[in-house]
Formats: sequence, structure tokens, C-alpha cells
Amino acid sequence: MSAESPVNPESPVNPESSPLSVRIGEVQRTLPTVRAGNLGRVPLVEFIGDPEFTNAAAQAMLGLIPPGTEILLTVVTNALPLTHELSDRSGLPYVCARKKRRTYMQDPLIQNVPSLSLGVAETLWLDGPHAERMRGKRVTIVQDVIASGGTARALARFVELAGGTVGGYMAAFRQGDTTLPLAYLQELPSRV
Amino acid sequence: MSAESPVNPESPVNPESSPLSVRIGEVQRTLPTVRAGNLGRVPLVEFIGDPEFTNAAAQAMLGLIPPGTEILLTVVTNALPLTHELSDRSGLPYVCARKKRRTYMQDPLIQNVPSLSLGVAETLWLDGPHAERMRGKRVTIVQDVIASGGTARALARFVELAGGTVGGYMAAFRQGDTTLPLAYLQELPSRV
Repeated sequence: MSAESPVNPESPVNPESSPLSVRIGEVQRTLPTVRAGNLGRVPLVEFIGDPEFTNAAAQAMLGLIPPGTEILLTVVTNALPLTHELSDRSGLPYVCARKKRRTYMQDPLIQNVPSLSLGVAETLWLDGPHAERMRGKRVTIVQDVIASGGTARALARFVELAGGTVGGYMAAFRQGDTTLPLAYLQELPSRV
Repeated sequence: MSAESPVNPESPVNPESSPLSVRIGEVQRTLPTVRAGNLGRVPLVEFIGDPEFTNAAAQAMLGLIPPGTEILLTVVTNALPLTHELSDRSGLPYVCARKKRRTYMQDPLIQNVPSLSLGVAETLWLDGPHAERMRGKRVTIVQDVIASGGTARALARFVELAGGTVGGYMAAFRQGDTTLPLAYLQELPSRV
């Protein structure tokens, strides 16, 4: 599990793989499909519990970081180990929004976002001291999968509320027809 | 942020630091104190958003892994990047319990646990396919901070329900008077 796979930066994703088979660098995964609300079956991407896959994605995503980025912003949970690795490998710090109010938060920023996987609106929370780290900074939004783009837009509003500017959007996978200008490694089908 | 700090495996923690100043390897942090329910003020450990601190802790915790461990089990959220790093550096796979039911879970295991930071009971969920990875395995429980030990005991029940055996308990910080046999890097005061 721990071996870091060699990654070919010229071609991080194999375009010949089947829709549910993903390959990043030397790491191949066949994604399970799961029921998601009333959307039918969708591919499930899990970075949690899979350090090899996480590290390969982080390495490949290094090449997607928009020039001028000073700090990364993500949201729990699946993108957390991925963004930790991307931060570590790029040298860029990161900030992470939460999906629960924690009692220790100070002057948190709040945004509502519709959720694909839960089928209900979710609330995102960003602790004040972490929001402060984005002030005056060029911030790139990082997610594991971007589908409708609703979560990404909520994160972008956090950046603006914190006094930063959005440098761009990046995700390991794009799934659906978001209009966001998005850098990503591979396209996933919206339903299977 | 990205530089990996050299870690002295002989002395990962400096015992001369003040109660709220923690030092792991070459990385020093002064922990903020926050209100936690009716417990008064407690030190706040945040690995999320701090890859340098996370990596130093993971490196130091390598030496705490009980011999014979075959897989690690943790729970979201603060311990997730830490356990990702520990898994990556040790070569041991990991499984991560969640605090929300996800629609895609198949035959999840469920445990209730009282929560220090939220002040109410929390429910932990472990997706069936991930529980299956622990069957017949020697599993070590990993957390960022272990206080009462309630969460750790809930995770241990997951191990038993999944057909594994608990190999031990480890945390970056011990905070309080749990009776669990616990390997940890540093003691934190329960209140300040």
C-alpha cells in the first residue's frame, strides 16, 4: 500500500481505459457503482483508505495548479487526504472547510450547498482563523470530484468573504456538466 | 509548509515544553485553547490544514505501532490526514469510520459514542466493504487525541464485529485519564 508509484507527468491519465476504470500514473482502480439519491447508479471515488491512489492523484494534480496560486481551499471529507498530499508536495498551504459546526469555531463563515450524495442541502462551515489565512491571497479550490459545481461555488464564496481571490478550480475527477472552468485528471460518467 | 522535518526517533517529544506548547521532531506548535461544552477551556489540536505538523506526528508515531499490526482503523475527521500519512509511511493499509450515514454504504456497522467536543452522542458508521478488510486481521486503533477513550472503544467494537482482533491503541496525544492501554507521543492537560 505504501509504495509511491512512478508517475508519468506527460500522460497521467490513460484515455483508453473504460468509463469505470480509472488510471492515474501507474495506479489503476475499478470504481464500484452505488445508488445516489434519485440519480440512479453513479461511480464511487474513494480516496479515504487508499493512500496509493491518493498519492498518485496528488502527484498528477501538481501539474494542474494554476500559476500564482498561494493557498489551497478544500472541504471534508473525501478530498482531505488528497489535499493534504497536494499541499505537502506543492509546498502550498491549505485550508479545509467543515460540514459540521464545531463548538470551538470562532466567527465561522457559513454557506449552504445542495448535496448530490446526500440528496439534501448541506451547510459548510469555515472557522474564522482559517478564513483569515486566505485574506489577500490567490486561492485555488480543490476537490476530489466536481459534479454540479455547487460545492465549488460555495467554497469560492468563502474565498471572497475572506478577502481573497479565486485563482481557479481543480479536481481529480469531473463528473457532469458544470460550467466552472475546471482543471481535472479524468472525466467520469454522471450515471451508469 | 512542504519541507519534511528531520525527526529524531530517540526523542520525538520534548518533555521540557510548556503544557500548551507541543514539539514533535523539529516541529513546534503552540496550541490555542477553546471552549469545549461545559468542560471549560481545552487545548485544540488541529492536524487539518497543517501538513508539516501532520507529517512530523506520523513519522514519530511509526515507532508506536504495536508489533504484528496488519491494518489501521481510524475515524474522521482530524485524524484522517494523520492516518493517511501513517499508513503511507508504515506500509500498513487503513480503514476509516465515518460520522455520517452515506447513501452508498452497504450493510454498515453502527456504534454510538459520547462526544467530548460536541457534547452529545455521536454515531459512527463503517461501510460494510471496509469492515470486511479487517476480517481475520490484527487491527490497531489510531486517533489524533484520545481523552475518555469512548471513541476508541467504539472503534474496537467495530474491529470485533468485523471479525478482527484489536492489536492496540495509539494516538498523537493523550488527554485525560482513560484506562485504555495507549501508546502516545505527548500528554495534554484536560483543561487549562
